[in-house]
Amino acid sequence: MKKIINAPEQYTDDMLNGIYAAHPDMVKYTENDLRCYCIAQKKQGKVAIITGGGTGHLPLFLGYVGENLLDGCGVGGVFQSPCAEQIYNVAKEVESGAGILFLYGNYTGDIMNFDMASELLEMDDIKTASIVGADDVLSNKDVAVRRGVAGIFFMYKCAGARAARMGTLEEVLAAAKKAKDNTRTVGFALTPCIIPEIGRSNFTLADGEMAFGMGIHGEPGVWNGPVKTADELAGESVDKILSDMPLGAGEEVCVLINGLGATSQEELYILSGSVHKLLNKKGIRIHRTFVGEYATSMEMAGASVSICRMADEEMKQWIDMPVHTPFYTQV
Amino acid sequence: MKKIINAPEQYTDDMLNGIYAAHPDMVKYTENDLRCYCIAQKKQGKVAIITGGGTGHLPLFLGYVGENLLDGCGVGGVFQSPCAEQIYNVAKEVESGAGILFLYGNYTGDIMNFDMASELLEMDDIKTASIVGADDVLSNKDVAVRRGVAGIFFMYKCAGARAARMGTLEEVLAAAKKAKDNTRTVGFALTPCIIPEIGRSNFTLADGEMAFGMGIHGEPGVWNGPVKTADELAGESVDKILSDMPLGAGEEVCVLINGLGATSQEELYILSGSVHKLLNKKGIRIHRTFVGEYATSMEMAGASVSICRMADEEMKQWIDMPVHTPFYTQV
Repeated sequence: MKKIINAPEQYTDDMLNGIYAAHPDMVKYTENDLRCYCIAQKKQGKVAIITGGGTGHLPLFLGYVGENLLDGCGVGGVFQSPCAEQIYNVAKEVESGAGILFLYGNYTGDIMNFDMASELLEMDDIKTASIVGADDVLSNKDVAVRRGVAGIFFMYKCAGARAARMGTLEEVLAAAKKAKDNTRTVGFALTPCIIPEIGRSNFTLADGEMAFGMGIHGEPGVWNGPVKTADELAGESVDKILSDMPLGAGEEVCVLINGLGATSQEELYILSGSVHKLLNKKGIRIHRTFVGEYATSMEMAGASVSICRMADEEMKQWIDMPVHTPFYTQV
Repeated sequence: MKKIINAPEQYTDDMLNGIYAAHPDMVKYTENDLRCYCIAQKKQGKVAIITGGGTGHLPLFLGYVGENLLDGCGVGGVFQSPCAEQIYNVAKEVESGAGILFLYGNYTGDIMNFDMASELLEMDDIKTASIVGADDVLSNKDVAVRRGVAGIFFMYKCAGARAARMGTLEEVLAAAKKAKDNTRTVGFALTPCIIPEIGRSNFTLADGEMAFGMGIHGEPGVWNGPVKTADELAGESVDKILSDMPLGAGEEVCVLINGLGATSQEELYILSGSVHKLLNKKGIRIHRTFVGEYATSMEMAGASVSICRMADEEMKQWIDMPVHTPFYTQV
């Protein structure tokens, strides 16, 4: 294991200290707990949106806390859920009278802890609603048990914009749901990553071998085999997405080409070019393309392709709303 | 070699096609040559700033073409210089009456080609000035032959801001020079990268071994040895920088923690936290911290630390000026 760290057991807290030191004007922590990550200044009367999940996916999850996006994040250890009390503390800090939306990935540990936090908040008479990202097409045929991966970005964008426009809790939830219903992702890994406290990868890929459909914690994919070309990977990804969410000529989408960590931006743009060619050929229009690292698995090599259908004009406005966090700025 | 590509010989052009497809409102190419990369709409009467260099360092070099930054970029193949004619064509396209600043890295091939382009432009009565980034402290004791690495970001920011404020060619050059004189970088690699058309790395690092002082093309460093901790690497980097550019308590700097490609953002923030602790202890104030990928070497693992001394208030204003490119947005 080669990493720029001080000690495996300090990984998450050293990272958090680094973030707070670099961006003191934008984020802070509460209850003297580094893992209770909050926006520096809350906006009064706005629905608070809170996410959370394990460390190791930057900019997911905490990187989306900022202006016109999210208000707080419960931070777990590497690939671990934050605990209910941390989520509760974040919620108490950023809540400002209009209720709370919990918006996070579809993982058992996270669901359990967010649900417990909801119960605690109800005892304080704070209204909550919950929705999970579950965009990974190849993780399961049943949407209810699909994993949440990079496509949650579009849920953050839509819910964040609706909340910034002072929507009610029901309206913010509906915006997140609209993004969820219209977003699908397919990902693939070329190399594994290493959890610092374990010190070795929990799976291996041979020279020249890749895993198609693999999850961002190394969950098995649908096939392992020789590395395909960018055009082939784009083709197979778009096929899988469109067979799950059919799109006709003239429909408009946003495309997100996400790097899993070690893959160069050069390769991501090569892949993006391949996806563009395919969508153009089908007459599908592209409203906006996002290319970069949006949901990673530390130093895993690989990428994911997400397509978000623009269901209406309002949704395009949400996607286009400027946002600003320490990790992601859109103007 | 595991990369998401179509064919090694298409690497640069497939990447460029992907970028133009994703960001048609922001960038374009001229003379029917993908490698003549220009801002989509030039600003009349402004000094045009043009950079250039090899592919494989995204967002360097072309990623800084955009609002309040650069106007064009000559794009070479992987780790190769663009040719003089490409630089000349970019210059002709973006020039708008106030002259041209060539601002690029201190590499022999680039210097030769930019100088040839200057001569061609002089024959057209277009005024040019040139300056090279040469911030890599460990590459040579003599500043004149030092390599340019991530610290060129501060030269781009200062020159870009001065040009956006309609400075003369002399003033824009002076802004770049002020950033150059006050910026130092130290970098280190944990793994090599692979040039696509070669197919294997041109050096190796054993398990647990790193190279301190290595360049972004794999130029040898000052020592190879066991991977040190983030605190140790920060300490050694800051020491080397401060012995070349002494800073006293109360002085103000910007810090740039740059990932070389495969290193996770988590690790970059751990390193950033270590640098902050050291500077705080010395009483050096930090105006702004930049953490992310600013100058990479494809999938090389490693990082660099750059410190840019804020020489005066004007320089802070330049650094703080909002910028917007397909790769980098600051508000």
